Amino acid sequence: MKKITFLILAAFAVVFGAQAQEALWSRANVVSPQINEDNSVTFRLMAPQAQKVAVTGDFTTTEGKDIRYGEMSKNDKGVWEFTTPPLRSELYSYSFVMDGVVIRDPSNVYMNRDVASVTNIFIVNGDRGDIYKVNDVPHGSVKRSWYHSATLEKDRRVTIYTPAGYESGKDKYPVLYLLHGAGGDEEAWIALGRTSQILDNLIAQGKCEPMIVVMTNGNAWQQAAAGESAAGMTTPSMMGGGRRGGNSGAPQKSFEDSFGDVIKYVEANYRVIKKKEGRAVAGLSMGGMHSANISRMYAKTFDYVGLFSAALPNTKDEAIQAGIKTQKDNGFKLYWIACGTTDFLYQANLGYMKYLDSIDFPYTYRESDGGHIWRNWRLYLSEFAPMLWK
Amino acid sequence: MKKITFLILAAFAVVFGAQAQEALWSRANVVSPQINEDNSVTFRLMAPQAQKVAVTGDFTTTEGKDIRYGEMSKNDKGVWEFTTPPLRSELYSYSFVMDGVVIRDPSNVYMNRDVASVTNIFIVNGDRGDIYKVNDVPHGSVKRSWYHSATLEKDRRVTIYTPAGYESGKDKYPVLYLLHGAGGDEEAWIALGRTSQILDNLIAQGKCEPMIVVMTNGNAWQQAAAGESAAGMTTPSMMGGGRRGGNSGAPQKSFEDSFGDVIKYVEANYRVIKKKEGRAVAGLSMGGMHSANISRMYAKTFDYVGLFSAALPNTKDEAIQAGIKTQKDNGFKLYWIACGTTDFLYQANLGYMKYLDSIDFPYTYRESDGGHIWRNWRLYLSEFAPMLWK
Repeated sequence: MKKITFLILAAFAVVFGAQAQEALWSRANVVSPQINEDNSVTFRLMAPQAQKVAVTGDFTTTEGKDIRYGEMSKNDKGVWEFTTPPLRSELYSYSFVMDGVVIRDPSNVYMNRDVASVTNIFIVNGDRGDIYKVNDVPHGSVKRSWYHSATLEKDRRVTIYTPAGYESGKDKYPVLYLLHGAGGDEEAWIALGRTSQILDNLIAQGKCEPMIVVMTNGNAWQQAAAGESAAGMTTPSMMGGGRRGGNSGAPQKSFEDSFGDVIKYVEANYRVIKKKEGRAVAGLSMGGMHSANISRMYAKTFDYVGLFSAALPNTKDEAIQAGIKTQKDNGFKLYWIACGTTDFLYQANLGYMKYLDSIDFPYTYRESDGGHIWRNWRLYLSEFAPMLWK
Repeated sequence: MKKITFLILAAFAVVFGAQAQEALWSRANVVSPQINEDNSVTFRLMAPQAQKVAVTGDFTTTEGKDIRYGEMSKNDKGVWEFTTPPLRSELYSYSFVMDGVVIRDPSNVYMNRDVASVTNIFIVNGDRGDIYKVNDVPHGSVKRSWYHSATLEKDRRVTIYTPAGYESGKDKYPVLYLLHGAGGDEEAWIALGRTSQILDNLIAQGKCEPMIVVMTNGNAWQQAAAGESAAGMTTPSMMGGGRRGGNSGAPQKSFEDSFGDVIKYVEANYRVIKKKEGRAVAGLSMGGMHSANISRMYAKTFDYVGLFSAALPNTKDEAIQAGIKTQKDNGFKLYWIACGTTDFLYQANLGYMKYLDSIDFPYTYRESDGGHIWRNWRLYLSEFAPMLWK
C-alpha cells in the first residue's frame, strides 16, 4: 500500500509539474524572502523585462535603524535582488514595487490583509519573532462562529480562541475580549495580531494563564469581515467594508450598546468564569475606545482593561466623567494604558491620563517607541496577557 | 457617545487616508474585478509604465467557451483593461501577467492558495455561484483544532465545520470526513472547496441534512498546513510543504493507518452519530484514494463513500481485491464515483469501475465535463452532500 501511494504521488508530481508551467499557476522560480544566517534578509523577483524594482517594508535593523525601501538590482538572469542588513527578530510586512505597481512577492504565499492592503509577511526568529511564530507546543483551537445580536438585530461573526486542554477538560476559563481598530474586523487580531501564536507560546512557557480570547467585529453596521457576509466580496474600507456592500445602514445602536449580546453568547456556549475577576476587555485604537467605554458602561463586569494606542472618550463630557467616577468607585484589578511615543494618539493618551490623575483613578502606563502599528499591538498583547487573572 | 465615536472615526479616516499614500499600503485606485450587469467581467490594473499586461484565468462564457487569457489595453491614464464576454455563474480564479511577471490584482483582496500558487478569486452570481457565495442564511461554525495521532506520533491539525444550530442544540449529527488531494492540506476544502458556504446554503434550502464536516490533513509526514506548524513559513509543494520544513521524515505509517485517531477524536469531542449510517468519507484525487482505502480498511464503519476524480487502489493487488470483496459483503448505502471526461485520471476511473462491475460491486457513477480542477470538486461536493443520510 505504501509503495503504491508513493508511486501515485510521484505520478501526480509529474502531471502537476507540467501544469505548473501554465501561466495561471506559474510562479517565479526563485527563493524569496531568504532569511540568512545573520538575520539579514534577501528578496528576489524574477522580472527580466522590468525597468525598476524595489522592496518596501517595515524593517528594523539590529542597530535600531528603520528601513522602509530598498532598490533591487538585476542580475544577468533577470532576477532582481536586495539584501537588508541584519534585522531584529520580528514579524515583518513587505511588498515589491515593480515599475510603479505595488505587487506581492510571487515566491511567498504568506500574506496579511490590513483593511484593503495585502502585504507579504515573514518572521525573523530569535526574540519577539519566537513569540509570534508557531512553535512545537500544545496548540489551542480557533473557531469562527455566529451569534445573534438582539441589540443590533442581526447575526454577527466572532472569532474565538480556546487554549490547549479546553476541549478535553472540564475547567472553567477566564475570558479576554480583544477588540480591533477602525478598518479591522473579527479577522484582525487572529491574523495581524498573531493572537493564537502569542497565547499558545506564552501559556506553554508558563508566562500566562490559559484563557479564552474572544475577537469580535466592532463595526456595528457590519455582520462580518469582508467576504464573510452576504454583503459579498466588497473592498474593505476604514469605515467598514460592509456598509456600502448591502448590509443595513447606519446602526441605531452602537457596538458598545450591543456588547451584552456577545458576553451572553460566550457565557452560554463556553465553560467560562462568569464573574468580574474572570473577564478582561482590551482593544487597539478604536477598540481601545470601545474597551474604555464598555468597561465603564457595564458596571462591575470587568476586572481588567487594556487600552492599546487607544482613541479615547471625551473626558469633558459630564456623563463620561460620572461613568469614570463610578468605575473607580466600583474598583477593578488593572487598567492598563499603552501607547507609542510617535503615535498620532500619543497626546490624546497623555491628556486622558492627566484627567485620570486629577480624580485619582488608578492605572498603569506602558510607553513604547513607535507609532500606530501592529508591531506595537502584538507587543502590548504579549505584555498584557501575562498580567491577567492574578 | 455616538457622535463622538463618529467624529473620532472621521479623524481616523483622515489620518489613515494620508498613510494610505505611503508605498507600503498603497494600492491602485481602480475597481477590479468589476462584474457587469450582463455578467461580463472587467479587469483593471493601473500600470502606466508597463509594456504589456494580460489577465490569465479559468473563465467560461455563457456559451460554454473557455477563456484562459486576455490581453489588456492601456488607456491614456495608464490603466490597463480587459472585459470578458458574459460568464457562467461560477467561482473563478485569475492573475495578471505584467511584463512577464505573474502578479495578483492589487485591487482585489480575495485570494485562494492552491499548493504554492496564490490567485485572486471572484464569484459570478446567478447559478452555481449562488451556492458558493455567502448568503443571508444561518451559518455554521468553522473550527481549527489539534488532535493527537498516536499512530503517527504527532499532534495534527484538523478543520471542522459544524452546522447552524449545533452550538445551541442537543442533537447528534452525522459526520462527513472530507479529504484533500496531493499538495493540499486541512485548509484546502474550506478555502478552495467553499465547504462552509456549500453546506450552509444547501442546508438552508432544505436540500441537505445538517451534518458535521471534518477536513483532515492527509499528508502523514505533516502536522499542519503550510505556516501552521513549527515547520515554519515554508513554501508548500505537491509532496507536502512540511516534509522539507523540519517535521519528521517519511512516515512509518500511512494516513489511512492513522484514520482511526481522527474518528476517535471527533467522536470523543462532538455530538455525533457513532454508527455506520452516520459516517461518510469522501475525497478528491489522492483523497479519493484515501477514501477508497479507508472505507475498505475500516470494516463496517462507513455507509457512504465518495471518490471525486480519484486516484485509485491497484485492483490487481490480491489483498486489495479481498478487501473490496469484504466491503461489498458487509454492505453500504452509497459508493459514489465522479470524474470529468478530460481528467488525467479518467481512464483509471473507468478501469476501476470495470473491476467493480466484474464482481458486482454496487456503485453510482457521475461523469462531468472538465478535468482535475476545483470547479469539479465543488460541484461534486454539492451533489454528494444531498445524497447522504437518507
